Amino acid sequence: MTTVITLLTDFGLQDVYVGVMKGAIATINPSLRVIDLTHQIPPQNILAGRFCLMNAYSYFPHGTIHLAIVDPGVGSQRQGIAIQFKEGYLVGPDNGLFSGILDLSQALKAVSLTNAQYWLTSRPSTTFHGRDIFASVAAHLASGVPLQELGDLIDPAHLVRLSPPSFEKTPTKIMGYIQYIDVFGNLITNIPSTAIPPALSHWQLKIKDVIIPMGNTYSDVALGEAVALIGSHSWLEIAVRNGNAQAQLQLDWGDPVNLVC
Amino acid sequence: MTTVITLLTDFGLQDVYVGVMKGAIATINPSLRVIDLTHQIPPQNILAGRFCLMNAYSYFPHGTIHLAIVDPGVGSQRQGIAIQFKEGYLVGPDNGLFSGILDLSQALKAVSLTNAQYWLTSRPSTTFHGRDIFASVAAHLASGVPLQELGDLIDPAHLVRLSPPSFEKTPTKIMGYIQYIDVFGNLITNIPSTAIPPALSHWQLKIKDVIIPMGNTYSDVALGEAVALIGSHSWLEIAVRNGNAQAQLQLDWGDPVNLVC
Amino acid sequence: MTTVITLLTDFGLQDVYVGVMKGAIATINPSLRVIDLTHQIPPQNILAGRFCLMNAYSYFPHGTIHLAIVDPGVGSQRQGIAIQFKEGYLVGPDNGLFSGILDLSQALKAVSLTNAQYWLTSRPSTTFHGRDIFASVAAHLASGVPLQELGDLIDPAHLVRLSPPSFEKTPTKIMGYIQYIDVFGNLITNIPSTAIPPALSHWQLKIKDVIIPMGNTYSDVALGEAVALIGSHSWLEIAVRNGNAQAQLQLDWGDPVNLVC
Repeated sequence: MTTVITLLTDFGLQDVYVGVMKGAIATINPSLRVIDLTHQIPPQNILAGRFCLMNAYSYFPHGTIHLAIVDPGVGSQRQGIAIQFKEGYLVGPDNGLFSGILDLSQALKAVSLTNAQYWLTSRPSTTFHGRDIFASVAAHLASGVPLQELGDLIDPAHLVRLSPPSFEKTPTKIMGYIQYIDVFGNLITNIPSTAIPPALSHWQLKIKDVIIPMGNTYSDVALGEAVALIGSHSWLEIAVRNGNAQAQLQLDWGDPVNLVC
Repeated sequence: MTTVITLLTDFGLQDVYVGVMKGAIATINPSLRVIDLTHQIPPQNILAGRFCLMNAYSYFPHGTIHLAIVDPGVGSQRQGIAIQFKEGYLVGPDNGLFSGILDLSQALKAVSLTNAQYWLTSRPSTTFHGRDIFASVAAHLASGVPLQELGDLIDPAHLVRLSPPSFEKTPTKIMGYIQYIDVFGNLITNIPSTAIPPALSHWQLKIKDVIIPMGNTYSDVALGEAVALIGSHSWLEIAVRNGNAQAQLQLDWGDPVNLVC
Repeated sequence: MTTVITLLTDFGLQDVYVGVMKGAIATINPSLRVIDLTHQIPPQNILAGRFCLMNAYSYFPHGTIHLAIVDPGVGSQRQGIAIQFKEGYLVGPDNGLFSGILDLSQALKAVSLTNAQYWLTSRPSTTFHGRDIFASVAAHLASGVPLQELGDLIDPAHLVRLSPPSFEKTPTKIMGYIQYIDVFGNLITNIPSTAIPPALSHWQLKIKDVIIPMGNTYSDVALGEAVALIGSHSWLEIAVRNGNAQAQLQLDWGDPVNLVC
């Protein structure tokens, strides 16, 4: 069976950086299948990459290798890592990018990528480990090289974790914030569906001084009106039917939201 | 032979929505081949999606499945459908997105996607049928599940049709409008090559008070000058040689054009 | 073994032009593998396409076919060509797009694409040879059709060459300019690593009246500070750590840079 490698980066699509990584993978093993998650993570925004990875990984075949590079520390002392977890493998910089997945699943084994035999070159550039180390390591891993061959075993408990602030809950209020804004302008909060009481109709969302009704889908409100609902990734989100909630409500990443009874 | 699934959406490339759909497809059948048509249909613009699909489908192998999602009515009562037509299959919302293809080709059979056995989950989200229903159904169809297994047969004559206004023709005039503007700023009208008399040199294009000469290719005019020609998709279009006609002529979607003798 | 075809164009991702080329390739041979280099070359900027191709080709498997279309002269008398070079094949317009690769490697054989048998249609559009000629020719070449079948042999010495100005070097100064700016705002000069003396610490970069220190990687300077280093493509480049050098230094394509002792 063909192993899938997913790619998530902040490289954008203007330059050939992503194409060159795919070339490096195809040179090592042309039968591997590569699927782009996104290359438009805001530059150096590890938290946005973390969020996207944790919402995507569970939709891929068991054994998929997620190669992710949002790497402001490239060339510094930060480690390159490969992790085996319950559903597959993770390859990239050790900077917290994978900590959202590891909050939900479980790291079984981890290595520091010290074995240059599996790099593209024994003298990697100081600025593009995506090409010279990570893509090459992922291709070898996907081709059957055992994880422990890739470098020194490290304790998964010592991997860098990034934990954005959690929501807070009282009997009459859930306080959270906007953790991601998608291309439609939907405002995705850090309040998961599991935190929300079932009798949704008794609640309403307050942002600044605006009250937004709860609903089940976009068409629960009129065209151009805002609605709060459980989004497809199971977070509470705010949308405007056939419109752009970010632009209309003038809100931004990090703005606080309150769900009140 | 590998079946091809094409993808056309208004999801953009910033988020992981498209990647997750590809993950869902790969989980069902990793040998399927997915080709992106575009993910940058203007948000909720069904007519633009309709236009792009009708200009693209004939270049794909017989039997290709076109999975298309521009779906402002997701979560409402609009149906999800799969259609067998002469050249392949169509999967997506029943909102007119496929009606351009069906104007040119012929629907042979259609079903409403009611059989939850072929969905990704029996409890689909209300906002992302692309992932939870359409991608999954397309992957099963591409893997050999017969169309009629996917749900209840419906009469193709009852599918939602979208028919943008047609051009009008008199002996000395063809009146149309700009139906699409591409990334180069080329202005694509709704006047097809078949409507245009062969003695093109006797005609000229009038937009507002500007006269644009007819030509055969960009280099028929000087750098920076406008020309009207039959575009690669067989519609009359207006281009500026090595420039951007939309910006230079200050025209927009829907603006009227007149071809006069 | 599966042959890889890479795609580089200025078509952008908004329209279905790229998807349709992939459809044409899949119709001829569905087992071919297509990898996107980029579709966001600035419109009609042959020099930017030339730069991207020369930095990418060496990372692909031997025998890869690079299909590249930045083609302001489409429909004019410019030739369509296919070239066999040491590492693979090149297909596209004869306008200098491939001359960066051919400066580094060696053209072994070249043909003018005159054999309409390998085109998608014997009556190609005048504006989209990418679909009607180049994609089709590349797919046939990748499927085993010999190069000389595709048209008339031409002398590789007669191919159009584009040679942007070279850097100039004195014992105490290297004068070059910015030849490319990537999506991060990194300013890539035309000074190759091979031109730079090993004792880098004695040198510094001067742009306008700003002095920029030499370094080995981004983290050699503080956050928000500029550094000059050898980039991953082996050109001298200017970056701002976790920032955008183009915006911060207010520089543009073509601006002169001086490395002084």
